[in-house]
Amino acid sequence: MILRLSYPNRVGMLARITAAIARTNGDFRAVEMVESDGAQMVRDFTLTSGSDIQQRRIVQALKRLAGVTIVQISDRVLQLHRGGKIEVQNRFSLDNGEVLAMAYTPGVARACNEIVAHPESVYDYTIKGRTVAIITDGTAVLGLGDIGPDAAMPVMEGKAMLLKALAGLDAYPICLRTKDPQQIIDTVCNISTGFAAINIEDISAPRCFQIEEELQKRLVIPVFHDDQHGAAIVVFAGLTNALKLKRQKLTRVKIVINGAGAAGVAITKFLLSAGATNLLVCDRDGILSRRQSDQLNEAHRWVALHTNRQGVTGKLDDALKDADVFIGVSKPHIVSRKMLKHMAPKPIVFALANPVPEIMPEEAAGVAYIMATGRSDFPNQINNALVFPAIFRGAINVRARCINEAMKLAAATAIAECVSPADLAPEYIVPRVFHPGGVRRVAAAVEKAAIQTGVARGVAAPDGNA
Amino acid sequence: MILRLSYPNRVGMLARITAAIARTNGDFRAVEMVESDGAQMVRDFTLTSGSDIQQRRIVQALKRLAGVTIVQISDRVLQLHRGGKIEVQNRFSLDNGEVLAMAYTPGVARACNEIVAHPESVYDYTIKGRTVAIITDGTAVLGLGDIGPDAAMPVMEGKAMLLKALAGLDAYPICLRTKDPQQIIDTVCNISTGFAAINIEDISAPRCFQIEEELQKRLVIPVFHDDQHGAAIVVFAGLTNALKLKRQKLTRVKIVINGAGAAGVAITKFLLSAGATNLLVCDRDGILSRRQSDQLNEAHRWVALHTNRQGVTGKLDDALKDADVFIGVSKPHIVSRKMLKHMAPKPIVFALANPVPEIMPEEAAGVAYIMATGRSDFPNQINNALVFPAIFRGAINVRARCINEAMKLAAATAIAECVSPADLAPEYIVPRVFHPGGVRRVAAAVEKAAIQTGVARGVAAPDGNA
Repeated sequence: MILRLSYPNRVGMLARITAAIARTNGDFRAVEMVESDGAQMVRDFTLTSGSDIQQRRIVQALKRLAGVTIVQISDRVLQLHRGGKIEVQNRFSLDNGEVLAMAYTPGVARACNEIVAHPESVYDYTIKGRTVAIITDGTAVLGLGDIGPDAAMPVMEGKAMLLKALAGLDAYPICLRTKDPQQIIDTVCNISTGFAAINIEDISAPRCFQIEEELQKRLVIPVFHDDQHGAAIVVFAGLTNALKLKRQKLTRVKIVINGAGAAGVAITKFLLSAGATNLLVCDRDGILSRRQSDQLNEAHRWVALHTNRQGVTGKLDDALKDADVFIGVSKPHIVSRKMLKHMAPKPIVFALANPVPEIMPEEAAGVAYIMATGRSDFPNQINNALVFPAIFRGAINVRARCINEAMKLAAATAIAECVSPADLAPEYIVPRVFHPGGVRRVAAAVEKAAIQTGVARGVAAPDGNA
Repeated sequence: MILRLSYPNRVGMLARITAAIARTNGDFRAVEMVESDGAQMVRDFTLTSGSDIQQRRIVQALKRLAGVTIVQISDRVLQLHRGGKIEVQNRFSLDNGEVLAMAYTPGVARACNEIVAHPESVYDYTIKGRTVAIITDGTAVLGLGDIGPDAAMPVMEGKAMLLKALAGLDAYPICLRTKDPQQIIDTVCNISTGFAAINIEDISAPRCFQIEEELQKRLVIPVFHDDQHGAAIVVFAGLTNALKLKRQKLTRVKIVINGAGAAGVAITKFLLSAGATNLLVCDRDGILSRRQSDQLNEAHRWVALHTNRQGVTGKLDDALKDADVFIGVSKPHIVSRKMLKHMAPKPIVFALANPVPEIMPEEAAGVAYIMATGRSDFPNQINNALVFPAIFRGAINVRARCINEAMKLAAATAIAECVSPADLAPEYIVPRVFHPGGVRRVAAAVEKAAIQTGVARGVAAPDGNA
């Protein structure tokens, strides 16, 4: 948010304004002078974009200041979104009859006939060879919940931007006006023609499990639910490096996962298959255990039957006692400093609720040995953006039929290895999103795993970059 | 097709090569020298892309020429298609954490919340405001027929290119893996979120009628089946100017339409609503008449009941007797010069089958007063590309809820008026696709009609250009 304020050019005015903003917890980025005529001063105050409520609170606080006039309020984020964040461009200029006769009728028939004769060549002569569909129904968008398909569009466009910027892949957002799993499955199958892969995104649990599974059966292109596997892969990468620092083994540590949605369930499965043995998973009702397994949905029942070997019951704070690792994929502010103190010494804390974590790093300071969040403004950002561009790039480069467990593990290991032993530190356990060469390295590991496990169908055209 | 040939550098060799190509009806575009060492000559021969069969025939003819070696065959059309013809691009650079925090989490929530609060703002803050979905099932692609959704992709990408190049609109091809009308309808409704309009394309009749009608009922954005209405509008524009030249009235002339698919039915309806009274429509079984109306599908029955007032029967050549106008949207070579001679004097002939018309202009020369085809290599190209970019641009500029009859008529009239009275001639009855200012002029007429008929919801953001 950029506020243009006009006020009398007197000593102390600027201090009063900044104090007023500070009292509403407003966070400054910049103050710039626009103009000054001696008596009157005009300045632009740039603030990091908080919630709507916070923005309104700041504006009200400033209106109450005598002498201060709000000249203009503009919103950097909304300005950036105007007209959308992506666009479709022609790859060559279509400006005369000759090129039209090749790109469209009658010449285009040549490309059509080639695809009829050699079906696989659709990857060569159309956008299919490098395009990912980003599919959502808008039911579980970021921390916002069920905001519907229209309001989900900006997030899916952002995701498309990341695939382009980081992996050179084209992606297109498809936000569905249905929440019915069968309708979603049929729709995605119907539109899959022009896509090299499907990224399922922000569809709420437990529907997301059924949808992904069914699509993987019906389609011969990779189907990847990022909220599950992206989260699991990057958590595993971070945890691998965190345990290296603590010289602990995954098989020996006690891990508590809070949140049994898409991410929580996938992280659980991934950690179990990687060898974790002492794992408790909590949802809002407390620790999942086999005792209540007949009251649970299919995904939660699986979790209850494969974790919590001793069948303990209780709430999150019971679970956390003597735990080495906490992984939160749940809600803001549900873990206190006191709860961390009941964990084993020097705990590893991944508080990944977005945008506000289960416990803020300031509150955990001095107790947590390693602290990670989903946020870009703290160290150790555990971000799916470290995963999905690279894993799609790798899978598409070799035209993989699917993204299998070996490819996911290869991605996680490669992400962890992007942090060199020399750099590894409690405040640096995962690379940054814009880590130079990161995508290329992770994609190469994914390609190799796809080839080794026999799911690679061939090598894509050299148009793709990574 | 580009053929790189190596041959002895002797007088007469070039002539023998060109003669061999000419004997196979190969059509030269260019001959360029690549290298010559005195004894041996290497040249690139560029030929217009014919059919696969013709290309093979040329290659075989050249192989039989003593001394000539084919160094390389490359295909200009396929080269142009490699990697696809369109791409998704980011509208601003995503290369650091600060812009990531605005375009993606946490900042993007600001745009999402704005859309939740003001649903119409999805047009402002996402790509919806300027994006058209191009939907096909690949059942009636150009002159190629039912080639399936994969092979239809290059045509749909070509269409997207035209929308961008001519109207500044973004478009995305969605080729469906189903032919079931209800599946198609549901799928398009489900994915309509991110699109300002739907272009139905190359779906075979009669399913296309039901699909379009049902989608128009269920969606509040324009749904336009280009094969129907694009064809009808551009034919009407051309016919309007042709009749001006002949000083005849639409209400008085005898018109024969051959082909009762999507285009034929739509042209019939459009001409009837514009005042045509003497109209015969033929399909492969001959003239449609009310006598057999109980054996016809719904669309053909409608045509039979609203045309052919005198209930004549017979084949196409019976229909053509004394007709003033022939409009073919059917098959190659089914009209002969002799048949044209049985029409009224100085007939108007629109032979629009693509890529090979019902009668070639050479064959009609001297009989037809006005000759039009769908091809870019003859005068009077009756091309949907004159219609769909402009009509979508106009509809989207005012956020029209639909594309209604008034908007279609406005488009047709404006297209006809792009040919100035001074330029109007038997060989120039419609503007060219790249007519300067054409799209802007037609779009403005469409906007006006939308506003006048009360289907305009507002004015789009100024990002759109036209």
